[in-house]
Amino acid sequence: MTSTYVAQTVDSLLHYLETVPAAVRQLGGKREDWRVREVGDGNLNLVFIVHGADRSLVVKQALPYLRCVGESWPLTLDRAWFEYEALVEQARHSPARVPAVYHFDRIMGLVVMEYLTPHIILRKGLIRGVVYPLMARHIGEFMAETLFKTSDFYLPAARKKEHMALFCRNTQLCKITEDLVFTDPYRQAPLNRHTTPQLDGVARSFQNDGPLKVAAQELKYAFLTHAEAMIHGDLHTGSVMVTESETRVIDPEFAFYGPMGFDIGAFIANLLLAWCAQPAHASRQGEREEYRRWILDQTEAVWSVFRERFSALWRNRTADGDGSDAFPPELLKSPAGLAEEALQAVLSHIWQDTIGFAGLKMVRRILGLAHVEDLESIPNPEIRAACELQALMLAHRMLTDRTCCPTVKALREMVEDSEAKIPGRD
Amino acid sequence: MTSTYVAQTVDSLLHYLETVPAAVRQLGGKREDWRVREVGDGNLNLVFIVHGADRSLVVKQALPYLRCVGESWPLTLDRAWFEYEALVEQARHSPARVPAVYHFDRIMGLVVMEYLTPHIILRKGLIRGVVYPLMARHIGEFMAETLFKTSDFYLPAARKKEHMALFCRNTQLCKITEDLVFTDPYRQAPLNRHTTPQLDGVARSFQNDGPLKVAAQELKYAFLTHAEAMIHGDLHTGSVMVTESETRVIDPEFAFYGPMGFDIGAFIANLLLAWCAQPAHASRQGEREEYRRWILDQTEAVWSVFRERFSALWRNRTADGDGSDAFPPELLKSPAGLAEEALQAVLSHIWQDTIGFAGLKMVRRILGLAHVEDLESIPNPEIRAACELQALMLAHRMLTDRTCCPTVKALREMVEDSEAKIPGRD
Repeated sequence: MTSTYVAQTVDSLLHYLETVPAAVRQLGGKREDWRVREVGDGNLNLVFIVHGADRSLVVKQALPYLRCVGESWPLTLDRAWFEYEALVEQARHSPARVPAVYHFDRIMGLVVMEYLTPHIILRKGLIRGVVYPLMARHIGEFMAETLFKTSDFYLPAARKKEHMALFCRNTQLCKITEDLVFTDPYRQAPLNRHTTPQLDGVARSFQNDGPLKVAAQELKYAFLTHAEAMIHGDLHTGSVMVTESETRVIDPEFAFYGPMGFDIGAFIANLLLAWCAQPAHASRQGEREEYRRWILDQTEAVWSVFRERFSALWRNRTADGDGSDAFPPELLKSPAGLAEEALQAVLSHIWQDTIGFAGLKMVRRILGLAHVEDLESIPNPEIRAACELQALMLAHRMLTDRTCCPTVKALREMVEDSEAKIPGRD
Repeated sequence: MTSTYVAQTVDSLLHYLETVPAAVRQLGGKREDWRVREVGDGNLNLVFIVHGADRSLVVKQALPYLRCVGESWPLTLDRAWFEYEALVEQARHSPARVPAVYHFDRIMGLVVMEYLTPHIILRKGLIRGVVYPLMARHIGEFMAETLFKTSDFYLPAARKKEHMALFCRNTQLCKITEDLVFTDPYRQAPLNRHTTPQLDGVARSFQNDGPLKVAAQELKYAFLTHAEAMIHGDLHTGSVMVTESETRVIDPEFAFYGPMGFDIGAFIANLLLAWCAQPAHASRQGEREEYRRWILDQTEAVWSVFRERFSALWRNRTADGDGSDAFPPELLKSPAGLAEEALQAVLSHIWQDTIGFAGLKMVRRILGLAHVEDLESIPNPEIRAACELQALMLAHRMLTDRTCCPTVKALREMVEDSEAKIPGRD
């Protein structure tokens, strides 16, 4: 094991893993039996799959720059440490929903973890039209458990702030979100791209839309200042791996203390993008209609399950004091019904944030730097643009009128009522 | 200089100061010429005034417990460090408004600072009916400078979060605020006290007022989670020292990254408490009417000056980028007028918080543990209760209907329209 950073290669990694007892135990056999391949398609990291005699492993190593942009955008290796810390914290609250971690090397910026098989990335499953019956429940529960239990609703303020202080240092990855999600899509930024020329007009109009830009900046301010819970920070359908019965959340390197609605909104936004893209993935007219309804069912279910589990955790707090400082149960004992009333107020605040952040996450995937395969894989630009425009119009509504859908049912109706049509040029 | 903590006495302090070059320089002469007295009337600290041959000094030392409650409420000495760090930071942005710091000893929890003379505590001046023509301007500017320049409107997120991480550790003093301001007045708490039996009824009714309690808890949640700026954290009229031409803000040991409205609300609340108490300090009917109007003028002026200076700082940001992440000026360049529109939205959010926090601060001084001399010094309990009840009714309105006064003018009118009357028993 060297004591300075080197970006691993297929060869160097074999030698490295030989020195890591936990890895040797998992893999079984000897180095000569192990096979490694690099599979990273993300923007920030090397990812290796290592097959051993007994079992397989994943090795994720941070690169000292933003991979998709190149060495001109340097990043510290600390994000591997934030990912590791977040995985450990999430495992505490929702152990079945995250990969097991076997080894962490801070100098290498490297995590050795469970190889998930036969899981695939949820986004790819959605593009193929695969139904995952437990996914929405799993994700809703994961969000409720991890968000509630790192928040002031559960932790004494001193413990929460101690944990939060660690994540105050995860500013480089936050900065990526601040720029790429909240800012660039609303200005002429060199890294932006969109389906051109079809979306030129709407891209320009978003950059000159005062109320939209103020809404985006208000939400950015909430992202910068509202330290509600340890959020995943990048919880889209590409950060979830699934089988029919299993769901795992990966890649929490963007974790920090931020607004709960950012995670929930990210996930719902990506379901809505998948919904917008579905007609383009049909091999014949109407083929994906049922699947599309299923996607909206999942959108509803994710929020409903989150709300249920969050409410159960809220109700489980005892008036004798588990020490949480926000909305102390003892105070809410009288008058009768107050604890439930306060819960509804809290949930309604989270839902309103969710709608706004979801809108932003939809826009950034169409007008910003990083796009999603759901839409990118549509070869015909006219059809792609039509799907994208529908998503943009929904997002515009969600951002500029946050009362547009006071419930998830109302959100669903708004989505169902929206129309996709081939846009003319502006 | 010993290397372990000892609570200083008048004698030990002389020996201690002898070993501090900065103190020796300020005081001049020799130890034999110096005179010390302990003057602390606060709850957390020893405060000494030291007169030397040339100049005088103040020495403030943290006690390892909450003084007003006794040794049963232990507190770490770290708060002296937070006070020191906050004084240094405030001096960076508003040097004329804070005492100069000559020496800090972390082990002793001890700060040696400028002796302010002939300054008196603003609260005492208000009780006496003294006019301070520059006070409101000074405080408004101090708040705008210190809040804006430690916020995301001014600092890049990474620098702000680095500073914020330090203050994440100031949880013990935050906890005092969380309990004594946001919680105890709304429940039967052993430390509560109020003018009894006159206010028994209203105290009970506040403890059973659902909407009021939810409002208080929503604001507590903002206090726990909204890390907007390094706030003073205890900015009442007892934390301000004045002469006719000078204003200094002292005692920032409660400083942490919290909502801006908490500081502004605290100050306005204490002006309103002073206003409510004025008739009781009149030696003849109507004597204080003009002074009362002056207090309301100052309430208006503090906010107006804050708004002006905050707006000027906002407008001074350049689109070329001073690196602030919130509402980036470059983004607000188009459409025309957007930067101003966004500024108004931000100010209106701060004002709404201000109203809420002001309401809470008024309630806690009447139904909670720590009261204010403005009201405590009224000997007749019937008259005191009448003043207090007027303040409580105003606060109730501010807390349960935050749209009650969209402007500071509207707040003034609401205050002027309120009535003081001797309450019957509930």
